[in-house]
Amino acid sequence: MKGIWLENKNIQLKKDLPIPIPPEGEALIKVIRSGICNTDLELVRGYYPYTGILGHEFVGIVEKGPENLINKRIVGEINAVCGKCHYCKTGKKTHCEKRTVLGIVNRNGAMAEYLTLPIPNLYTVADNITTDEATFTEPLAAALEIQEQINITQKNRVLVVGDGKLGQLVAQTLALTGCDLLVVGRHHHKLTRLESKGIKVGLADAVKSKSFDITVECTGNPDGFKLALSGLRPRGILVLKSTYAGKLNIDASAIVVDEITVMGSRCGPFDKALELLKNQKVDVNSLIETSYPLEEGMAAFHRAQQKGTLKVLLKMD
Amino acid sequence: MKGIWLENKNIQLKKDLPIPIPPEGEALIKVIRSGICNTDLELVRGYYPYTGILGHEFVGIVEKGPENLINKRIVGEINAVCGKCHYCKTGKKTHCEKRTVLGIVNRNGAMAEYLTLPIPNLYTVADNITTDEATFTEPLAAALEIQEQINITQKNRVLVVGDGKLGQLVAQTLALTGCDLLVVGRHHHKLTRLESKGIKVGLADAVKSKSFDITVECTGNPDGFKLALSGLRPRGILVLKSTYAGKLNIDASAIVVDEITVMGSRCGPFDKALELLKNQKVDVNSLIETSYPLEEGMAAFHRAQQKGTLKVLLKMD
Repeated sequence: MKGIWLENKNIQLKKDLPIPIPPEGEALIKVIRSGICNTDLELVRGYYPYTGILGHEFVGIVEKGPENLINKRIVGEINAVCGKCHYCKTGKKTHCEKRTVLGIVNRNGAMAEYLTLPIPNLYTVADNITTDEATFTEPLAAALEIQEQINITQKNRVLVVGDGKLGQLVAQTLALTGCDLLVVGRHHHKLTRLESKGIKVGLADAVKSKSFDITVECTGNPDGFKLALSGLRPRGILVLKSTYAGKLNIDASAIVVDEITVMGSRCGPFDKALELLKNQKVDVNSLIETSYPLEEGMAAFHRAQQKGTLKVLLKMD
Repeated sequence: MKGIWLENKNIQLKKDLPIPIPPEGEALIKVIRSGICNTDLELVRGYYPYTGILGHEFVGIVEKGPENLINKRIVGEINAVCGKCHYCKTGKKTHCEKRTVLGIVNRNGAMAEYLTLPIPNLYTVADNITTDEATFTEPLAAALEIQEQINITQKNRVLVVGDGKLGQLVAQTLALTGCDLLVVGRHHHKLTRLESKGIKVGLADAVKSKSFDITVECTGNPDGFKLALSGLRPRGILVLKSTYAGKLNIDASAIVVDEITVMGSRCGPFDKALELLKNQKVDVNSLIETSYPLEEGMAAFHRAQQKGTLKVLLKMD
């Protein structure tokens, strides 16, 4: 089968990959759509040592697996877990000690014709959700993880730093809480998308120092972190949503003096993300930049690597 | 009056300082004991722009103030607050927007013969607490702030990084929760003090990676932070207790991937600290390195600046 293979910071379209044979407890899934995420771009830059097929955002159709899932459109949680360790047993499955992660850690990913995943990871997609839309389930779930970690209400002043793919999803999900929300970014055309949804937007200079209860860093760059920290009130919470290539230089004394909480945030609830898509509570279609067939995967990555590009999809159907 | 004056990173013993006149709502306090804290050493190194009399750990006797406090031994909360701002009104007085801070921000400190503080800041000292012991009220309260922020129980595995003055107080207060506690440091003689109290101790290599629910960084240096981060389980909490001179280089991706919480922690509850001292639940006497009269303040600072020194006190009585 064809697939996009990463090895030593080089990606290539391989055409002779074996179709995977699902181990016991896993399903064989024909991939029909896959999204390129910033994490994929970071993997290519070498921020994490991964060799294998890339991709963790996908929609597929079950070809081998339980009767009730055969031929169904599904999405899948990316962490394949042991079910037995401390984390699995205490409701923190995404932190399983022995986990493999689709297209990220020791598990071939979704930018290929087929993948396998454990059956409990799979969620069927409601008929009224398009395949393009369902591809956003994983990043939308990641955006929702913030609300799993912090109770955000109408009383909170919240700042989102970053108007990219992740920032757009985070902003839309936070807006649903009714909080007093501001999104700052650098791209006029991205900010206007949010503005058209009734969300307050601005450039960095719109951030008044020490005025937000919660700030969410979605840029993955040190300037974004600095802005998210400076905008935060004493005893505020800075949610770190982006992965960072390399080290981050922070003003730790400010964190101590203002008793700031910095909270890392990663994978979130698929069921809640699918519910939002089904009920059309978030708009993901406007986040699609363009699509390429899998065969043109190299061109797709080239496009995704351009600054300011929104979601680039790979189509296999 | 005499006092230790900081200006442009230089300290000197001034002998001609005016005795302060208490503004309305403040008491005039004759200082009888003052402690040198690491924050004082950091101020001298210039990590924060302060000019004035140093010192925020003290015991004094009220000379002018309300009838019921006159001639009483007191300690005092170091943040003098407005009582009207958002923080004062929401129970976060130590973050008052207009606060001055004894010997740290716009308010002359305790290394002098007299100081003034707002009357609500003052707490009388029970008779069975010695003056030397009571000088530890402020740092002991700061150690207790951790338990104001996080509920720590017998179920938690907790690591304290640092065996200095702050680490010793943090360790003793955490031990009272019954948590599974380990303290790591670099100084054999300091660790043995904790060991003699039944607390598990070790060197840095005693820290097993990703094995603690909560880690507390009490060293104020980047190596300490790194160790506190590496020892933390996914979804764990790293409490940042020390102030840091300069920037801290951190692995932000680890914070995101493991969904770590980094929490700054500063001033704490004086009432609870005094209660512990009164009931002899913590031992502070063994943390006293030595004492100097105020007149020998320069020698006292010189001594406090030596590596590995515990608490140096200034005596005015």
